[in-house]
Amino acid sequence: MKTISVGLVGITGYAGMELARLLAGHPQMRLTMACSRAEAGQRLGAYYPFLERLPGADVVISSFDPQEAASRCQVVFLAVPAGTAMDMAEALLRAGVKVVDLSADFRLRDAATYAAWYKREHICADLLHKAVYGLPELYGADIARTSLVANPGCYPTAVILGLYAAVKNGLIQSDDIVVDAKSGATGAGRKAAVPTLFAEVSDNFRAYGLPTHRHTPEIEQEISILAGKEVRLSFNTHLLPTNRGILATIYTKLQDPHLDLDAVRAVYAETWSRSPWVRVLPKGALPETRYVRGSMFCDLGLVVDPRTGRLIILSAIDNLCRGASGQALANANLMCGLPVDAGLENLAPLP
Amino acid sequence: MKTISVGLVGITGYAGMELARLLAGHPQMRLTMACSRAEAGQRLGAYYPFLERLPGADVVISSFDPQEAASRCQVVFLAVPAGTAMDMAEALLRAGVKVVDLSADFRLRDAATYAAWYKREHICADLLHKAVYGLPELYGADIARTSLVANPGCYPTAVILGLYAAVKNGLIQSDDIVVDAKSGATGAGRKAAVPTLFAEVSDNFRAYGLPTHRHTPEIEQEISILAGKEVRLSFNTHLLPTNRGILATIYTKLQDPHLDLDAVRAVYAETWSRSPWVRVLPKGALPETRYVRGSMFCDLGLVVDPRTGRLIILSAIDNLCRGASGQALANANLMCGLPVDAGLENLAPLP
Amino acid sequence: MKTISVGLVGITGYAGMELARLLAGHPQMRLTMACSRAEAGQRLGAYYPFLERLPGADVVISSFDPQEAASRCQVVFLAVPAGTAMDMAEALLRAGVKVVDLSADFRLRDAATYAAWYKREHICADLLHKAVYGLPELYGADIARTSLVANPGCYPTAVILGLYAAVKNGLIQSDDIVVDAKSGATGAGRKAAVPTLFAEVSDNFRAYGLPTHRHTPEIEQEISILAGKEVRLSFNTHLLPTNRGILATIYTKLQDPHLDLDAVRAVYAETWSRSPWVRVLPKGALPETRYVRGSMFCDLGLVVDPRTGRLIILSAIDNLCRGASGQALANANLMCGLPVDAGLENLAPLP
Amino acid sequence: MKTISVGLVGITGYAGMELARLLAGHPQMRLTMACSRAEAGQRLGAYYPFLERLPGADVVISSFDPQEAASRCQVVFLAVPAGTAMDMAEALLRAGVKVVDLSADFRLRDAATYAAWYKREHICADLLHKAVYGLPELYGADIARTSLVANPGCYPTAVILGLYAAVKNGLIQSDDIVVDAKSGATGAGRKAAVPTLFAEVSDNFRAYGLPTHRHTPEIEQEISILAGKEVRLSFNTHLLPTNRGILATIYTKLQDPHLDLDAVRAVYAETWSRSPWVRVLPKGALPETRYVRGSMFCDLGLVVDPRTGRLIILSAIDNLCRGASGQALANANLMCGLPVDAGLENLAPLP
Repeated sequence: MKTISVGLVGITGYAGMELARLLAGHPQMRLTMACSRAEAGQRLGAYYPFLERLPGADVVISSFDPQEAASRCQVVFLAVPAGTAMDMAEALLRAGVKVVDLSADFRLRDAATYAAWYKREHICADLLHKAVYGLPELYGADIARTSLVANPGCYPTAVILGLYAAVKNGLIQSDDIVVDAKSGATGAGRKAAVPTLFAEVSDNFRAYGLPTHRHTPEIEQEISILAGKEVRLSFNTHLLPTNRGILATIYTKLQDPHLDLDAVRAVYAETWSRSPWVRVLPKGALPETRYVRGSMFCDLGLVVDPRTGRLIILSAIDNLCRGASGQALANANLMCGLPVDAGLENLAPLP
Repeated sequence: MKTISVGLVGITGYAGMELARLLAGHPQMRLTMACSRAEAGQRLGAYYPFLERLPGADVVISSFDPQEAASRCQVVFLAVPAGTAMDMAEALLRAGVKVVDLSADFRLRDAATYAAWYKREHICADLLHKAVYGLPELYGADIARTSLVANPGCYPTAVILGLYAAVKNGLIQSDDIVVDAKSGATGAGRKAAVPTLFAEVSDNFRAYGLPTHRHTPEIEQEISILAGKEVRLSFNTHLLPTNRGILATIYTKLQDPHLDLDAVRAVYAETWSRSPWVRVLPKGALPETRYVRGSMFCDLGLVVDPRTGRLIILSAIDNLCRGASGQALANANLMCGLPVDAGLENLAPLP
Repeated sequence: MKTISVGLVGITGYAGMELARLLAGHPQMRLTMACSRAEAGQRLGAYYPFLERLPGADVVISSFDPQEAASRCQVVFLAVPAGTAMDMAEALLRAGVKVVDLSADFRLRDAATYAAWYKREHICADLLHKAVYGLPELYGADIARTSLVANPGCYPTAVILGLYAAVKNGLIQSDDIVVDAKSGATGAGRKAAVPTLFAEVSDNFRAYGLPTHRHTPEIEQEISILAGKEVRLSFNTHLLPTNRGILATIYTKLQDPHLDLDAVRAVYAETWSRSPWVRVLPKGALPETRYVRGSMFCDLGLVVDPRTGRLIILSAIDNLCRGASGQALANANLMCGLPVDAGLENLAPLP
Repeated sequence: MKTISVGLVGITGYAGMELARLLAGHPQMRLTMACSRAEAGQRLGAYYPFLERLPGADVVISSFDPQEAASRCQVVFLAVPAGTAMDMAEALLRAGVKVVDLSADFRLRDAATYAAWYKREHICADLLHKAVYGLPELYGADIARTSLVANPGCYPTAVILGLYAAVKNGLIQSDDIVVDAKSGATGAGRKAAVPTLFAEVSDNFRAYGLPTHRHTPEIEQEISILAGKEVRLSFNTHLLPTNRGILATIYTKLQDPHLDLDAVRAVYAETWSRSPWVRVLPKGALPETRYVRGSMFCDLGLVVDPRTGRLIILSAIDNLCRGASGQALANANLMCGLPVDAGLENLAPLP
């Protein structure tokens, strides 16, 4: 059984932490490089006590250097802020290393859209057409052939998987979609900041970023492709007092207001019948973030409201595993010729 | 300064608990009767240790008897389940006692609608036209004159106050409204049940009751009156891992898609300028459930999304205080000729 | 009814926030000055949205100036870090303003002990003998006569009130006391820091600061006075995933291992019979932090374990209200000739 | 690679839920029987949505029958209440099935002690000498040879592992030990009950069961064996607002009050050097419940307080995994000749 050497740039955030956890249990990947300017010199196990006695604990944290990376890794995960990843990715690709970028830098195919939403010019716009959007269920074959994966955002993962069957099959009016999304606090990152202190988030609930969350163009890009026309939707986000989990409640209007729940469910069941990670829940069941905790599952619940002619789609994922690091690992698996679910079979504790 | 004797039927639930708390600090009301079959015979302070050394602690819990109530109280609060309150209210009114009913039994003006949504015939349908819907900002004058107040549901309070200015002033398309509402766990009541155990709710988030939550007809009734035509809307509820708080995110379409935020804000500011409990937040600010904790405030945030022509209204209340017991107390104040905010001025701890 | 003008230095922390809340409901105190370098120029209501429409909301935040303070306030609360308060207190006293210092700067009577535990020389050591330790139940008369109150630490408040009756009456071996204390996250302050982020504290529990928490000498100072000899005890602290609340579990050995619970309870009941804020719970009942939330109550539970000859004392307070700002207000009340509980009668929401 | 067929009696509680999770990822065990009277007839995946698409989901829940069990399983886990397990265990053993009993029924070697603390006669007292106390680090060889394992309680697991090195090596006074233990809410079980509702536990903290928690004799039994004399200790429990996790803070007195931390650490390091699941943390580090979440790790932190001559031991485990179901699985592994950590290598999500 071959072993793949992998590197991880950006270990101090929650995505980096989650990758360290997942890699510790991966049967064929071995963490050989962990980069962080702030923590360079320390053993990874000393920085993350939960890793002690597990694979990866003895890696010494270093500063990022693309040549060094090339000499030690076949794949590198970039878990760094948007804007920082572009440079690194270009240098790594030039050095012959495969890259899974967890930032937003290569998700949007259009450099102008990137500039408009991220308030910064894209300095590697020529790489945009090479990057593959890393949703395994949609782009699995392309991912297996590329050396640069743009790992999807957490919210877009939940929303695109939720809408996919309905838009693809023309069940809904694609120009009248409202997404009300809620995310746990790890989604806000691991930066020291008063608004994400325990005593500010606990026993509280609020919306944020309305109406200009940066995941909007990413969702619209993919839904537009599915719809075959440009789609604008209303995407809105809220902060949950939970560690993990995204639940997106997606409000749509049925093309045929008389379509019943069984018909909708049949389309969804057929669409996802060969995708083990997407679970269309039994009739009447609604997804809960706890049931997808720490996993790659995307649980979908479907509600038809005949009073208003609406189809309501509920989509739940774990924002750190399916919405970031687990999906990055699945993409790396595909890029390296491994089974897509290698190292991703485990079930997280519940509750 | 006159003193009003009040009774409370149903003390073991969260609404009863909240009323006990509020009455302990009321300058002119005195709890003289507390009823609960299960806890009869106990001192209220023994049942609720937080009440010890405070007014009300020495009331001995008794079984409900309308004659007894009439001899001891001028007003009675019914904090009992829907279906149970009807009888009690009728008997109390006949005995000359004023009633604030916190259940749903008198909220819907139409007995057939009640039967359809609550799966039970209304046995006091003749009282429905006498009952006043207890939203002080909308029906203050009627409340002051009635002897039977139907205290609004928690979600309807947040949604109706949120939509009021927009519907009343024709800003939005009243036939295309989606409400995505989230509530803390006290909203689920204080019944022993596995789904509301700590370890089932904590670090979890889920929708429930879609698409047939019983607060739907109550909201539609009031919005239809404001719109001057029958309105059907999509009302959807979620369970937050918080003790208290409701945040309703209300998605609407502007009649004039070019109307800007300042224009909308001006209408809201004017509408609520004389209502101290409804706070239209500064431009850019969004409500948080913690800021209304334990209070009568309804905080409103307004977002206009020119990309999609939508007005998004965010409305936050405390589900137990403004959404139940505090509002009941405000109504009782009005019915007894006291200032509407007597006993309701305090600010809850934050965080 | 006279009105007292008060100032508050340090508004951005949780103690400052809690004082702003309490002052908004105080019948006779009026906030006329709120200081914070970082937030100077802003209205207090803009900084704290929960204050809007309430007394104090219109105060404009300013930088601290002792002369300005003297011209506007009779009492000033210092809610600033230890080390910062000394200077300010001295300047205010010189300008004729009464001071309640919520920091640790004047709590220890011995400057050398201060230097040893706080790693800094005391620059106003001459004021130490003037300062009164602000536990109203113990030092009420002295507080009423002083112009400088050293407001007790949160943990010491819980521990001293818990041990008082037992030590004072010689029930226990004062040289063999172990305190296992737990505090909510507001106790860690409102500074942006990774270890107090929501996702680091939630669903987690840990000890911290062992065995050298700075509240140790403060507790030992007061228990030594009660015991009439120098006492050293083991004081240990833990971080709870709650917003508020301290529970101290205090392990002691009975002088007479055959003393029974009723005898111990009798001593406690007698000791606290005239102190409305200290509630000795009924036999068998144990305190819970929720029952003292946002209040001045200190709930005491007593357990005698005849198997091991131990008396276990459980003491619960709200760390921000009784353990900081509420107690500061009580002290200010005494210093100004008001009833000790003015503005402190309200009951916090539960749950 | 051989496959072991296992049965699980009692699936609706948290221990049963955790076993179902762990078995779904076990490389060599296969769940072939799941028993619950209340849920009989349902697919396990329908009852536990998180199990869908994973091993075990298609098992149909049945009522317990020992003959049926013998025909389908080599090992049966009993995750039923104390008092219920005795009978079942006896019948299973008679039918030739190995048993891991997660209840307390076989933990105490002395039937009289069982009767005194559990208020019920032991009806299979003759089996008590056959049962092996299932702490793999202490009794691994015996466990491998027995057909009946008494799986330790959650608190005893944390406390015994915490004290082991100190008592065994005579570092401390074994007659003067105080344990202050805190547990997450899953420790209270999954029974519908008001005191464990979300809104009763959240943002609250309290002690319970003082001074007669039933885990006391179990701890004393094992510590007495280690000490070589009868030990009585003070064991006290608290309820944390977390889903999982136990932290025990153990207060002891050093035999030699001048022994320093390095000396104590050396003893602990040596004692546990060959036990991969017991991690003695680096000097200065203290355990946190999150770092052992969903794992078999027991993290130990050591504090010496020279001021009071005390050694304070902090021991953290996951109450459901190490404290119940994971340990049960480790014991079953040993009983079946598998590696003790089969199916237990994974790291739980953090945070």
